[in-house]
Amino acid sequence: MIDSSGARQAVLEAERVERATASAEDAVMSMADFHSWFNARTRANTFQVDRIPFAELSGWDFDPDTGNLVHASGRFFSIEGLRVRTNRPWMGEWSQPIIVQPEIGVLGILVKRFDGVLHCLMQAKMEPGNINGLQLSPTVQATRSNYMKVHGGADTKYLEYFRPESRGRVLFDGLQSEQGSWFLHKRNRNIVVETEDDVPLDENFCWLTLGQIRRLLLLDHMINMDSRTVLACIPPALTGPQGQEAGDDPFTRAFLRSLSDHGSAVHDSGRILSWLTELRSRQELVQRRVSLRQVTEDGWRLGSDVIDHRDGKYFDVVAVAVQASNREVAAWTQPLVAPKQAGLLALLVKRIGGTLHALVQARSDAGMLNVAELTATVHCQPGNYADVPAEHRPHYLDYVLTAPTSRVRLDVLHSEEGGRFYHAQNRYLVIEVEPDLDEPDDRYLWVTLHQLTSLLPHSNYLTVELRSLMASMRCLAQRL
Amino acid sequence: MIDSSGARQAVLEAERVERATASAEDAVMSMADFHSWFNARTRANTFQVDRIPFAELSGWDFDPDTGNLVHASGRFFSIEGLRVRTNRPWMGEWSQPIIVQPEIGVLGILVKRFDGVLHCLMQAKMEPGNINGLQLSPTVQATRSNYMKVHGGADTKYLEYFRPESRGRVLFDGLQSEQGSWFLHKRNRNIVVETEDDVPLDENFCWLTLGQIRRLLLLDHMINMDSRTVLACIPPALTGPQGQEAGDDPFTRAFLRSLSDHGSAVHDSGRILSWLTELRSRQELVQRRVSLRQVTEDGWRLGSDVIDHRDGKYFDVVAVAVQASNREVAAWTQPLVAPKQAGLLALLVKRIGGTLHALVQARSDAGMLNVAELTATVHCQPGNYADVPAEHRPHYLDYVLTAPTSRVRLDVLHSEEGGRFYHAQNRYLVIEVEPDLDEPDDRYLWVTLHQLTSLLPHSNYLTVELRSLMASMRCLAQRL
Repeated sequence: MIDSSGARQAVLEAERVERATASAEDAVMSMADFHSWFNARTRANTFQVDRIPFAELSGWDFDPDTGNLVHASGRFFSIEGLRVRTNRPWMGEWSQPIIVQPEIGVLGILVKRFDGVLHCLMQAKMEPGNINGLQLSPTVQATRSNYMKVHGGADTKYLEYFRPESRGRVLFDGLQSEQGSWFLHKRNRNIVVETEDDVPLDENFCWLTLGQIRRLLLLDHMINMDSRTVLACIPPALTGPQGQEAGDDPFTRAFLRSLSDHGSAVHDSGRILSWLTELRSRQELVQRRVSLRQVTEDGWRLGSDVIDHRDGKYFDVVAVAVQASNREVAAWTQPLVAPKQAGLLALLVKRIGGTLHALVQARSDAGMLNVAELTATVHCQPGNYADVPAEHRPHYLDYVLTAPTSRVRLDVLHSEEGGRFYHAQNRYLVIEVEPDLDEPDDRYLWVTLHQLTSLLPHSNYLTVELRSLMASMRCLAQRL
Repeated sequence: MIDSSGARQAVLEAERVERATASAEDAVMSMADFHSWFNARTRANTFQVDRIPFAELSGWDFDPDTGNLVHASGRFFSIEGLRVRTNRPWMGEWSQPIIVQPEIGVLGILVKRFDGVLHCLMQAKMEPGNINGLQLSPTVQATRSNYMKVHGGADTKYLEYFRPESRGRVLFDGLQSEQGSWFLHKRNRNIVVETEDDVPLDENFCWLTLGQIRRLLLLDHMINMDSRTVLACIPPALTGPQGQEAGDDPFTRAFLRSLSDHGSAVHDSGRILSWLTELRSRQELVQRRVSLRQVTEDGWRLGSDVIDHRDGKYFDVVAVAVQASNREVAAWTQPLVAPKQAGLLALLVKRIGGTLHALVQARSDAGMLNVAELTATVHCQPGNYADVPAEHRPHYLDYVLTAPTSRVRLDVLHSEEGGRFYHAQNRYLVIEVEPDLDEPDDRYLWVTLHQLTSLLPHSNYLTVELRSLMASMRCLAQRL
């Protein structure tokens, strides 16, 4: 197993340096002030999350006909069953519980220039599944139910900036997918709006520069999933040279060339689209919604406190009771999906002709809308493969688990959406590999970061996990 | 009602001129020779299509549990039920039969330069639902079942050029949607490959220039739907000045500027994506597959010879027996969807600042994968709205039906996919409107043809009907 002391050292160094350089980059708030503010928010906003039996859920019930776990309003989301048929040689067919949420929500970040420097309005927000309570979320994080106010709660703050009639300038606006293993066809609208208004600052919000946010992305469980996906969508050209991007060493130069459209890519963009189109045509992914009761045929057990798989793998479905002081509703109960262990998301990178390339794979997950999306080189919960024959284990999983610390460029734990997942965390790694390491089969391709970024305006190209990695690795171009 | 004598006159004029100019454009086959060849193929390839009761279908049965009409192999396609919930003010919820075909097929055109001029390899192909037997189809038109040879038929000719190991140059390769009103989430791979090989010419195939194909697109029911969608995807830049494109009159100049990236567009591309993202987030489109038997609750009748709606609207499901001499299998039976009347697809265009703009709408159909796609200004079967209150009739439907001939730039009848639809035809119109005609509501937007074309490499932006129109209207830039 690798240890992550190298990357941790970088974080500590980053925190030391950032205190010195924060004022130099004209942030409205120093990092020291940020941490003080964040700690104060943590103390001020009390919350409590308790596991409860399903029978104690309020407003949620198992439908008597199907066994589906649904809300009485017919809104929010439901836990149903999905039967999947693929043409993969291993585990080609299965059924599983899945979160069904056909509504498209809004994840929006409001940005504003202070003395010419772009700042993001970030929110300290509790979600019941968060491992650590508060995390930094986007300015707005609302399901359609939320902002149509089905639950009768308070207004969603700052939502007016993301409405069509807003006077702001839209920097990005696209639908992005979420976890295909746990959600059926789920997408959210990711939007970034720049305003010139005087924006009143609520006590749970703060303005941070992109450079500051990139440093915070090196901290475990600080920037939530919704923030990461939106941050990944901010066009690199807009962020400019902010954050003391440096081109001194060959790795950083190769990284910056990869982000720009000046790098030399081994495949042109037409080739990438054709490769993905061919895979999407060849890959069979037949999804059929079934009742939650029907997934018991494939080893799932519907208990009174938990829905789980008899092999002890994959995930559980649990229920929680929540009390919180800074949410639209002060107390509620809800189901959550609880993965059995942390996931591993490792992106292998190497320099080709002076431009950094990332090895992405086209991956099909149970609930994906468009057959396959691009994701990290290794993307799995390793425990699910503990008893799987070597030829069917994910490519490079063992390589990643034994990579020397000196090759690890990024190593951080992030939480996944705490509104739907209970203590779901993934370890995000960027590992620079030997020049001779190559595509293991035709589902993998070496691409530049610019090529990945240019796919972001269109839906369902990059998984939320790859977008998380892309947001997090931007710090690699910063002199920390 | 408009009459189409102006456009018909243009076709006749085109046919006169093309005979004179075909040799000038270095086509390998003159238009006169093409028509002789096509007529000979029609005489040589006998076929017969007869309506039969469902009970006489061979290999197809109504599933005893669900009533779904399925093939014994579990492959090809099935007729099932779909329940749809939207937040539209009129007909917001309904259920209907729908074609379910989760496989992605291949629609491929092989191109080759003869004396420097790009030619497409087109096929004279019978489909059982064709109103007129033979139409010109792409080089390859194959479901995954076809080329995996589930039915044990002959090899699909020229398929090897579209495999990953082909030595050809891929000019376009993307997934494109098909009719959202009749198909659930259906897409096909649209691919164009250029070869330098000597390609042996099968008797049912011919080489045509793009200029020749554009002239044929002015003829009713000649170029089939699968050809039109692939032709729409051929990048305009690749087709070059071929076909005597002329810039003499202001309309043609505005058209050519609209196709190029030099035109001045009223909305930038970021604005278009943001507009569509906002609509996709706001529009509710909740799809739930139900059994075919369940659609009877909404007025559908399951007869022994036909499945139809008691209002006499929408479409029927019928069964046919087919005998054909030039298909992989010589005789078979199958179900088909038969629309109750021809559809109307009208694109309103106008010159804005010397660049032609098209008024597109973002439209949600029952079976769409990505909530909404861009389509023609008017896109409907007019009869479905005969008894609908004026405020809920499609915008500009009455305008189109009464437009003066002098404003009609294109008017042609094309068939929809004859392998799934029985005598399905749509009237495709391009109408140049008054300068003061504007977007009727925020679901409509003026865009340039270049902006539409630049969305084609990505899936599910343009309906198959709009792609048909775009392929057909390319002739507007030709001196005919």
